[in-house]
Amino acid sequence: MTSNRQALLKSRPFGLVTSENFEFVDTPIAEPGEGEFQVKVEAISIDPAMRGWMAEGKSYIPPVGLGEVMRAGAAGHVVKSNHPKFEVGDAVSGMFGVQQFINSNGAMVAKLDESQASLERWIAGLGMPGMTAYFGLLNVGEPKEGDTVLVSAASGAVGSIVGQIAKIKGCRAVGIAGGPEKCRYVVEELGFDACVDYKAGNLYKDLREACPKGVDVLFENVGGEIFNTELALMNVFGRIVLCGLISAYNATEMPKALTNLRFVLTQRLKMQGIIVFDFAKDYPKAIEELGRWHAEGKLKLREDIREGGIDAYPDVLNLLFSGGNNGKLVLKV
Amino acid sequence: MTSNRQALLKSRPFGLVTSENFEFVDTPIAEPGEGEFQVKVEAISIDPAMRGWMAEGKSYIPPVGLGEVMRAGAAGHVVKSNHPKFEVGDAVSGMFGVQQFINSNGAMVAKLDESQASLERWIAGLGMPGMTAYFGLLNVGEPKEGDTVLVSAASGAVGSIVGQIAKIKGCRAVGIAGGPEKCRYVVEELGFDACVDYKAGNLYKDLREACPKGVDVLFENVGGEIFNTELALMNVFGRIVLCGLISAYNATEMPKALTNLRFVLTQRLKMQGIIVFDFAKDYPKAIEELGRWHAEGKLKLREDIREGGIDAYPDVLNLLFSGGNNGKLVLKV
Repeated sequence: MTSNRQALLKSRPFGLVTSENFEFVDTPIAEPGEGEFQVKVEAISIDPAMRGWMAEGKSYIPPVGLGEVMRAGAAGHVVKSNHPKFEVGDAVSGMFGVQQFINSNGAMVAKLDESQASLERWIAGLGMPGMTAYFGLLNVGEPKEGDTVLVSAASGAVGSIVGQIAKIKGCRAVGIAGGPEKCRYVVEELGFDACVDYKAGNLYKDLREACPKGVDVLFENVGGEIFNTELALMNVFGRIVLCGLISAYNATEMPKALTNLRFVLTQRLKMQGIIVFDFAKDYPKAIEELGRWHAEGKLKLREDIREGGIDAYPDVLNLLFSGGNNGKLVLKV
Repeated sequence: MTSNRQALLKSRPFGLVTSENFEFVDTPIAEPGEGEFQVKVEAISIDPAMRGWMAEGKSYIPPVGLGEVMRAGAAGHVVKSNHPKFEVGDAVSGMFGVQQFINSNGAMVAKLDESQASLERWIAGLGMPGMTAYFGLLNVGEPKEGDTVLVSAASGAVGSIVGQIAKIKGCRAVGIAGGPEKCRYVVEELGFDACVDYKAGNLYKDLREACPKGVDVLFENVGGEIFNTELALMNVFGRIVLCGLISAYNATEMPKALTNLRFVLTQRLKMQGIIVFDFAKDYPKAIEELGRWHAEGKLKLREDIREGGIDAYPDVLNLLFSGGNNGKLVLKV
């Protein structure tokens, strides 16, 4: 039997996640049964949505139960197989959890072509963040050539791709990020037309300058005061893709009021929430198009790969909320 | 020359409107010029949107200027005419303002058939409130048979029609109103399936009981804490028609936080603001259908007609915000 390091959810966090919320255990894992294979997990996708999965209450999927392995998308290689369609050595991705090994019957597991992209990229720009950016912007945001597309958390896994797709579609892409270094990255390396540093303290004024024709499509990842400010810049019949509200995920105090909600009414805005799983049947189309743009040099993808293994999970997750990452966060196992 | 009593906006209100915000003047009105006619205004439509028209800042139309006649939809009869298409005695409606007389060249003026409905009804259920309910619910809310449709301010001009159209379309119609008498009216006279009294103090619990299958379409007229509570009841892929935010129109303090905005994301809701003028080209279709439902007894329309003339305008307007009206408010001149 193989020893399997796992992160089990021990308690529901209040505010930021800490190591105290997890129990790290070495559990022996059985041999894969008939029709099963065993995956050695090598790269775990670190996503803001994980914070929501730890919380109780109504959401789009049930919360992770106390004592259960923390839910996570991940990639690795098949190391043992009694499954006719998965061979030892195959690269695969799936919801493998924050652990070293898992036995699977193949349901919801995708094979990855490592000649096209690394394991990390397959769970990053060509995985959920890429799908989220693609369907959120194109299906919900409906950008038209010449539109101004504003993206919060623009240097993040999803935001960085949203702005680049906006450019491909002939739009003006404006980002919001924290600090001059991230803003420089967003403009100079990703090719956004402008990026506003929300930490500089003049968000409304700076956004007005960066969006002289107002905002037609807002791709929202942050919420809170940043969202409230953005609302005041929306053009008539603008579209808001509500993808994330990261400012609220660790909140322990009441947020401020959304005083600018009235612009949804007076500007006749359409705001729509998006969960990427709803677009699952069209993933192949998105992967093909994102892959092509990437091969043509029109789409830059970047992973921020962290070492430390299973035990580093809480600290690496918190980088998302402190803004300590730059690009899609991946934890190497 | 005819003496014309007018309500001029003197100052921009802070909180509730008072008589101090208006100057009531008797201005002589000239004879109508070539191609013009003169209307004697007899009924003025009193609408929540008026409060917004008095405020400065970006909105869907410019604010009423200081010293200008207060903007209002109204109806009356032609009393003098030099216009080939409008004769003395014609009943007409238009944006005539809070005043007794106006000269018009006919632009944006509709002729009314008094054999079908009274002047008051033509600016009520068959006017803007009817159009707002019709297009907001059907074009934006997209109700399907069997859906639960929740309507705030359900006894009001728009809400009362929304719920009745929902019933015609085979939906469960649930209202929210203030006090047992309004709730009784909404259920027993308008035919909603249920109505929750938000003043009873158990809004979330009472709404859960009234909407056992959750809410598919929310027609929102109120905003604030009521809206925040409703958000927690929305079903996956629900639609929110943002028609009004009356709780905020006279606010002098910060509202509370919209803590349930996350449900827009997790439930993949679509929220869209609506201004009735955007549907102007389809008004005739709506008037025909509303008129037919009314004639068939499927749609009850009720006006709350107040006396007092031009000088009563501020007090009658405030009935909307105190909940003192029951049905569409009309001021008789």
